[in-house]
Amino acid sequence: MMSDTIVAPATPPGYGGISIVRISGNLSIRLAKQICKRRSSFSHRRPTLSSVYNSAGEIIDNAVFTFFESPHSYTGEDVLEISCHGNPIVVDQIVSTICSSGARLADPGEFTKRAFLNGKMDLIQAESVSKLIESRSIEAANINSKILSGSLSKKLNTIKESIVGVLAGLEFEFDISENESLIPNLITKSYKDINNNILACENLIDSYARGLLFNRGARVVIYGNPNVGKSTLLNALLEKDRAITSEVPGTTRDTVDADIVLGGIPVTLIDTAGIRDATSSVESAGIKRSYDEIKNADLLINVVTGEDGVAKNVKTKKTVIVFNKIDLVAPSEKLTDIVPVSALLGDGIAGLKNTIKDKLISKNTQASDIVLTTRRQEIAITGCKNSLSASLKYLNKDSPELEIVAFELRDSINYIDALMGKTT
Amino acid sequence: MMSDTIVAPATPPGYGGISIVRISGNLSIRLAKQICKRRSSFSHRRPTLSSVYNSAGEIIDNAVFTFFESPHSYTGEDVLEISCHGNPIVVDQIVSTICSSGARLADPGEFTKRAFLNGKMDLIQAESVSKLIESRSIEAANINSKILSGSLSKKLNTIKESIVGVLAGLEFEFDISENESLIPNLITKSYKDINNNILACENLIDSYARGLLFNRGARVVIYGNPNVGKSTLLNALLEKDRAITSEVPGTTRDTVDADIVLGGIPVTLIDTAGIRDATSSVESAGIKRSYDEIKNADLLINVVTGEDGVAKNVKTKKTVIVFNKIDLVAPSEKLTDIVPVSALLGDGIAGLKNTIKDKLISKNTQASDIVLTTRRQEIAITGCKNSLSASLKYLNKDSPELEIVAFELRDSINYIDALMGKTT
Repeated sequence: MMSDTIVAPATPPGYGGISIVRISGNLSIRLAKQICKRRSSFSHRRPTLSSVYNSAGEIIDNAVFTFFESPHSYTGEDVLEISCHGNPIVVDQIVSTICSSGARLADPGEFTKRAFLNGKMDLIQAESVSKLIESRSIEAANINSKILSGSLSKKLNTIKESIVGVLAGLEFEFDISENESLIPNLITKSYKDINNNILACENLIDSYARGLLFNRGARVVIYGNPNVGKSTLLNALLEKDRAITSEVPGTTRDTVDADIVLGGIPVTLIDTAGIRDATSSVESAGIKRSYDEIKNADLLINVVTGEDGVAKNVKTKKTVIVFNKIDLVAPSEKLTDIVPVSALLGDGIAGLKNTIKDKLISKNTQASDIVLTTRRQEIAITGCKNSLSASLKYLNKDSPELEIVAFELRDSINYIDALMGKTT
Repeated sequence: MMSDTIVAPATPPGYGGISIVRISGNLSIRLAKQICKRRSSFSHRRPTLSSVYNSAGEIIDNAVFTFFESPHSYTGEDVLEISCHGNPIVVDQIVSTICSSGARLADPGEFTKRAFLNGKMDLIQAESVSKLIESRSIEAANINSKILSGSLSKKLNTIKESIVGVLAGLEFEFDISENESLIPNLITKSYKDINNNILACENLIDSYARGLLFNRGARVVIYGNPNVGKSTLLNALLEKDRAITSEVPGTTRDTVDADIVLGGIPVTLIDTAGIRDATSSVESAGIKRSYDEIKNADLLINVVTGEDGVAKNVKTKKTVIVFNKIDLVAPSEKLTDIVPVSALLGDGIAGLKNTIKDKLISKNTQASDIVLTTRRQEIAITGCKNSLSASLKYLNKDSPELEIVAFELRDSINYIDALMGKTT
């Protein structure tokens, strides 16, 4: 049931030049006319200035009303956007006045949900709206904007159309055609098409690591022996003083988190307590947490110095070894795969940032135009790929069981349809 | 020089459905076309959907562009409003891409300043924009919205026109007319008109107290002997636990502030240290601060109990006497002008709120449709009134010096013109 009319502030809360309140549903026009004591209606896509009144009839603001007539609106329903002044009390009054006249406060994401339900966008695009709003880097916004504008949907439609083509050929063959000689040629072509679609699915599935990296970000854990300058390194990477540093070994007792963006990747840097035999129970708890963080990290930074050599290593993870304090003791030999820095002076920090970025990206996937961003997408396309692989297995037999091949192909199409929110 | 094009986010910063970036100036169209790689121009007042690209040519969002052609825009210049998704990184990219193409980041209030300079609103209306955005209650928003929609400007224009009428009559008289007999009648009428305008100015000047009360708010200081329940009363008025309370006299050492809105008035409640001979230097400093707060208060709440009678009174200020702890010791006689409450149980608190509100409003002025909100307005209208009074004094003489009367009248008009930002 979408017969009710919903209203909500559309802009972030707070003080500013403009805030927007959005109404969607059958009552939109009536409620908007009521709140500005207006008799004439609004014209489609025609911003109109009007005073706004609360339930008590007091003027609360002067606002611009823009009407988008169904179905030519974001939600597909009648939509009114009210641009008022950016004051939370004014916004609140407008929303509550409209609610008291018969609208309902919208749930989070409900405008986008209606856009999907009314066929204004598919489910993949609808998902990307919140991903775009939550993006923490330009690269993430770029990835999500592309999905919103339909690039992933288009790609999936291409795959689906190709599978539908194969399926149509096979169904024609086993339903109608009596001509046995057609089959070998058909099977060769179907085999090739299915295989191409499997490759396309695999590329998409591989891209998920990249989508995850840019959307969810990476946890990078700095660890090493006490007093090698882990907190100083954290501060150098952040370019500000986040962690308390001192010359006393064991200064950092709890883990310290801080967020930066490296090459578009939202990176959470985690400074840990130095790993050594603890001198107190507080420090011991800190060292335990260090091990936990190391377990959950996407990348480790092992800090060593010329004074005390390499720390207890945790070789299960991708690691960058940082040779710190080069201002005190320079590395005695040429280092390979080790980044020399002076966290204190800032030397080598830019290079270290590049190394971190490269390790995170190479660990994941290379740039590609279309990237999966949700687990739901990855699961569906993996399902699609598995069905395609199964169909290929049956097609590959000496006397292919075309009904089973077709069954698997239909299944692969269902995965795509479900992903895009189409009911078959 | 307004030849440069300015750009800025118009909506509050943060995450949400929509954010708006606004461009104003000659380059608006060109910059907007550039950022969405569009060849055709935009139509006036016609929202248009388009992708948005950054300087590197990457898609960063899909946005709605609305063009307002000069002079039919907020600033009077060519204006483009870009409604993008409510993500700070997207907003930042759009603003910086537009800046890198030749626009400048707008100063705070610069769009409104341009609206004033281009004659889209007078200076009083322009002032009211920021007042409206900063409003902390519905009543304040209502007062400021009325000024923005021109009610105060209209009132001042009426006064000005009336003075211009008087002035024209007098000038005709002493410049051209040779007919002495006209003067008595003219003087009577002029006298009446000037007097009416003086009354109108006085009403406006009186309204400033109200404007100040609703816009700036009031400081209400709770004071009294130790342990009469001042902090408990503060918490009861706030309906939450803001101040630490205990049975130990002298618990509150520093003053505690908290904001509430009472009948549309933003009220800062200040809880003070109990006034007594201090037992420590910290407490003594607290008591000194209590006296400072009392000095700056708009209203005092003197808390007393049945146990310990009325505290040292500070009779210079408007005061509400609150008889607290009626759950322990009820007042022995009928109280006049004293509000009985149990701050602990919440009894009588609603009544106390009404009393505070009434005292604040009656101390100021009654409701009136048009209210002054800035000191600049009050100074100008006081100046206008003084000039009118002076003109009346000269008009009142046995043989009125009409040139001097006219001089004062011109002066009163100058005050109004300067207030509205008109250069004469």
